[in-house]
Amino acid sequence: MKVLVTVMPKAGVLDPQGKAIGHALEGLGFAGVGEVRAGKVIELELAETDAAKAKQAAEEMARKLLANTVIESFRVEIA
Amino acid sequence: MKVLVTVMPKAGVLDPQGKAIGHALEGLGFAGVGEVRAGKVIELELAETDAAKAKQAAEEMARKLLANTVIESFRVEIA
Repeated sequence: MKVLVTVMPKAGVLDPQGKAIGHALEGLGFAGVGEVRAGKVIELELAETDAAKAKQAAEEMARKLLANTVIESFRVEIA
Repeated sequence: MKVLVTVMPKAGVLDPQGKAIGHALEGLGFAGVGEVRAGKVIELELAETDAAKAKQAAEEMARKLLANTVIESFRVEIA
């Protein structure tokens, strides 16, 4: 079962990568670009076939390794 | 209008970050983890209010800056 974990900086946390992308887009001539936030996405292929259990396992992985929950929030989707 | 651009390494392209995450998960005792791929997600706040035009603009941004289309594929979603 394929699971997607999306990790984003929490609201209010400084996101220099997002800021840099925003400036670069402006420099390339793209108008009307407001806030830009950059995060990561991890695609996991799990042996688990039960969707609820797979989601639970991925949330545990996110809490323990994939996300720094002090400054990042995450969400888990079954793909 | 909020637009999400997800950038993933293309199938067949070596993904060392994903491999490292896979090994780390195994080391933490998570069983049944198969392939892991790591990508990035960029959340853009665009002034454009027309969904089709916003999507088109984001695709242009992805081609020009956000993704390296030689080794990465991207998809754009209106959030």
